[in-house]
Amino acid sequence: MRRSRRGRHHGQTDTSHQRQVIYRNLKNPLIKQPAFSADRLEAIHDTALRVLEELGIKVLNSEARQYYAQAGASVDEASMMVKIDRELVASALETAPSEFILHGRTPAHDVTLGGDNINFVSVGGAPHISDLDRGKRPATLEDTRNIIKLCEHFDIIHLQSPNVESQDIAVHLRHYPVTQSQLSLSQKPFFIFSRGSEQIADAFTMTRIAYGLSQEEFEAKPWCYTVINTNSPRQLDLPMCQGIIDFAQAGQVSVITPFTLAGAMAPVTMPGALVLQHAEALAGILLSQIVRSGAPVVYGSFTSNVDMKSGSPAFGTPEFVQAAFGAGQLARHIALPWRGSAATASNAPDEQSVYEFLMSAWGSILGGVNMMVHSAGWLEGGLTGSMEKFILDIEMLQIFAEIFEPLKSDDAELAFDAIANVEPGSHFFGCDHTIERYQTAFYEPLVSDWSNFGQWTDNGSKTATQRANGIWKKILLDFEEPALDPARAEELQAFIDRRSAEGGAAVD
Amino acid sequence: MRRSRRGRHHGQTDTSHQRQVIYRNLKNPLIKQPAFSADRLEAIHDTALRVLEELGIKVLNSEARQYYAQAGASVDEASMMVKIDRELVASALETAPSEFILHGRTPAHDVTLGGDNINFVSVGGAPHISDLDRGKRPATLEDTRNIIKLCEHFDIIHLQSPNVESQDIAVHLRHYPVTQSQLSLSQKPFFIFSRGSEQIADAFTMTRIAYGLSQEEFEAKPWCYTVINTNSPRQLDLPMCQGIIDFAQAGQVSVITPFTLAGAMAPVTMPGALVLQHAEALAGILLSQIVRSGAPVVYGSFTSNVDMKSGSPAFGTPEFVQAAFGAGQLARHIALPWRGSAATASNAPDEQSVYEFLMSAWGSILGGVNMMVHSAGWLEGGLTGSMEKFILDIEMLQIFAEIFEPLKSDDAELAFDAIANVEPGSHFFGCDHTIERYQTAFYEPLVSDWSNFGQWTDNGSKTATQRANGIWKKILLDFEEPALDPARAEELQAFIDRRSAEGGAAVD
Repeated sequence: MRRSRRGRHHGQTDTSHQRQVIYRNLKNPLIKQPAFSADRLEAIHDTALRVLEELGIKVLNSEARQYYAQAGASVDEASMMVKIDRELVASALETAPSEFILHGRTPAHDVTLGGDNINFVSVGGAPHISDLDRGKRPATLEDTRNIIKLCEHFDIIHLQSPNVESQDIAVHLRHYPVTQSQLSLSQKPFFIFSRGSEQIADAFTMTRIAYGLSQEEFEAKPWCYTVINTNSPRQLDLPMCQGIIDFAQAGQVSVITPFTLAGAMAPVTMPGALVLQHAEALAGILLSQIVRSGAPVVYGSFTSNVDMKSGSPAFGTPEFVQAAFGAGQLARHIALPWRGSAATASNAPDEQSVYEFLMSAWGSILGGVNMMVHSAGWLEGGLTGSMEKFILDIEMLQIFAEIFEPLKSDDAELAFDAIANVEPGSHFFGCDHTIERYQTAFYEPLVSDWSNFGQWTDNGSKTATQRANGIWKKILLDFEEPALDPARAEELQAFIDRRSAEGGAAVD
Repeated sequence: MRRSRRGRHHGQTDTSHQRQVIYRNLKNPLIKQPAFSADRLEAIHDTALRVLEELGIKVLNSEARQYYAQAGASVDEASMMVKIDRELVASALETAPSEFILHGRTPAHDVTLGGDNINFVSVGGAPHISDLDRGKRPATLEDTRNIIKLCEHFDIIHLQSPNVESQDIAVHLRHYPVTQSQLSLSQKPFFIFSRGSEQIADAFTMTRIAYGLSQEEFEAKPWCYTVINTNSPRQLDLPMCQGIIDFAQAGQVSVITPFTLAGAMAPVTMPGALVLQHAEALAGILLSQIVRSGAPVVYGSFTSNVDMKSGSPAFGTPEFVQAAFGAGQLARHIALPWRGSAATASNAPDEQSVYEFLMSAWGSILGGVNMMVHSAGWLEGGLTGSMEKFILDIEMLQIFAEIFEPLKSDDAELAFDAIANVEPGSHFFGCDHTIERYQTAFYEPLVSDWSNFGQWTDNGSKTATQRANGIWKKILLDFEEPALDPARAEELQAFIDRRSAEGGAAVD
């Protein structure tokens, strides 16, 4: 398997690029780390069910309350409170698929969610962008398109993300160029914001046009996803409910992610925060299954803690890591794909941003994450997308992908003959065993500099972040658009022009 | 257990320090990750035994060859090659202890090596020191003493290390002030270089004087350790053999660590490098047990890969992580404590230095490391000790320690009542459940900055490394020496004066 993923280019003279890698369709073979014993895991699940049964969840969307009521939940219209029996939850967990394929423009870009499959998703929802040249500033469509291009460039990014916000485009029109950019600059499964039925319907139509699908073909398979953040504690707002309903009706993917910050919107204890997360996620999952039995849905978590002095969210903390272990257990307990995160609160693409990112990434990966969101370029607790951090994160993700590769250890790898043929105190640089393998033996880093101090000083004493600056620029410069069929591209533009002329799509 | 480690200070008015933690005597509860199936692990072990039986190891020290010969190994004096039967290795593995205590000046500073115990050891053997103010420069005794103070200050550092080299002191005299500094500025178990019998004997005597021990009392327990690096491939040099012999005779600890860089001093395949590592370590372990049956010894590994373009060593690579998983398996296979590393090749305390460090640290920790060397302040592949990197690393080690703490999840932690008492869409900031716990709920970071972008900018837009600069300076300024008994300190100084006047101790 390692061999097949690490073949050499043939007939190529540039020896610096002889190791070719494909990081699609990764599986995570690491043993999953638990946070809780089996009985305490069951207690957390049971307490979440009690929250839904005895306390209920406030549902601001009347259509959603109707769905819950039809399914047999107890709905109080005056308070908008919905109380849900555990049998209802159990039936939803029976119909929600444990594993499914989210489709790209080509089959090579399909991703599988669930099981041991692991997928990386880049920065999501940041209003600002930053780079070393221009600093932090409101993001524009150009920035959004740049991030889409970086995501398309790197195999290790498996899905397009909520990206940075194109703040130069009004919200009622923003989904047109953003969705168009995702469909034309990238072939990967992509994200649609849940900002009301009109915007969702527009984006679905654009997908059908770009991919040449009938309505029936579109609804037969998942092609895109949305993220549903609950208003913790215990509240589902208008557009979030509508997103679950619209995506389920169309057979597309909802990633239901309570943002349960322990000590703020959730209890100060991590198990308490997970109880709340679990209850809210189950309520959303249930809604999707009421709308369409078997609709693809992902169990999301974003449980972390806050700085108790300031109330600011913190990420990559020990509490975050333990919560990730626990959230992964809960997802396996209900047999659903799990979405986790890699995150940082740092204000700069600095050393803190790296250790917070990497601690949370290890937590998610050892927790068994299937969809790791904010995996590249996320900064400042999600307020900024950073071009240099994007490159640093790609390096770390690629290292993870290489760690996932089973280590080949047949007798030739054990190298007894090579050891026999090298004199004591000598070296293996020139021996056949090395010559046969050295060009493809090791991961070649993207941004790491292994030169000695003198060479590094001669090259300007650049930090990794400074080196990353040149890397993203070169990728954007060299980017080749995976062009859409011209007729479809034209139809897509005509649709956008018409809808824009009609006034766009208001946000609920 | 969490509660007992996280008690509040009483009668203290500075509320920013109400969470007190003790990071001594850590256990690592994480499930250990394997690199190999049981049969391939056995194949690696078996191939290492074949290397010792059929190929042998070159032993440059004649006293060591005599020991091997007496024990029944086949010794060729002309080539200095020693061939070792597997039965000899097996008998050594029966007498070497699986777990033992390495003693500090006080019982509170004792550490346990083996089992699930995990100990962190800071930078070892760097000739240079660097900080943001003065850059990189040859290290001096003052720098060595500064590192000793930082190690003593932080609970999370469990053993004193080879530190940076006091290059302002000639090598034949260097061990006097360095060992004196370790004994007077710190209470933790400490390191002695294996630079010949005279230096080792001097350091042992200094330890007896400082701790008030008879020769018999000293030899009855381990108080200090040395690191033995083989000259890979398949060679043990003069001082390394002598170190094993002298430490074993005195009942002190040898950490036998082949430095097997895949593609350079070891086969280019990681399993091949581990075969060589294992063979060399077993040869050293055997020597210790021949000299003194039951002598405390640690199975060390430092297997990584090189940059095949330049031959430079690389650390924190995916290959490093996989080798760490495998080395941990090998250590458990032979039931010995395992020494691993956290390392980086970066030339600066930058983002690369953090992700390489943290990848290798996770590899070692998931491999089940008992003694993680170079865990604070190591830079540039070991050529430089960095004051700022030391602080960054401490932050990461403390996060690990918190992750190791079992997450309490009794019914009160599940917070059903708190969830019931907080309105939907509201928050938990003021509720009783939070108030009762918030001061001790979460890890308080050392260097992470969780302020918002505006505050961070107002504070000078400092990176984590820049903030670390102020932290180590304050610790050194406030450092209180854990003074030795004055009579012992005086006797120690008299010994040093006498030995210095006699000309010190030549290095073999």
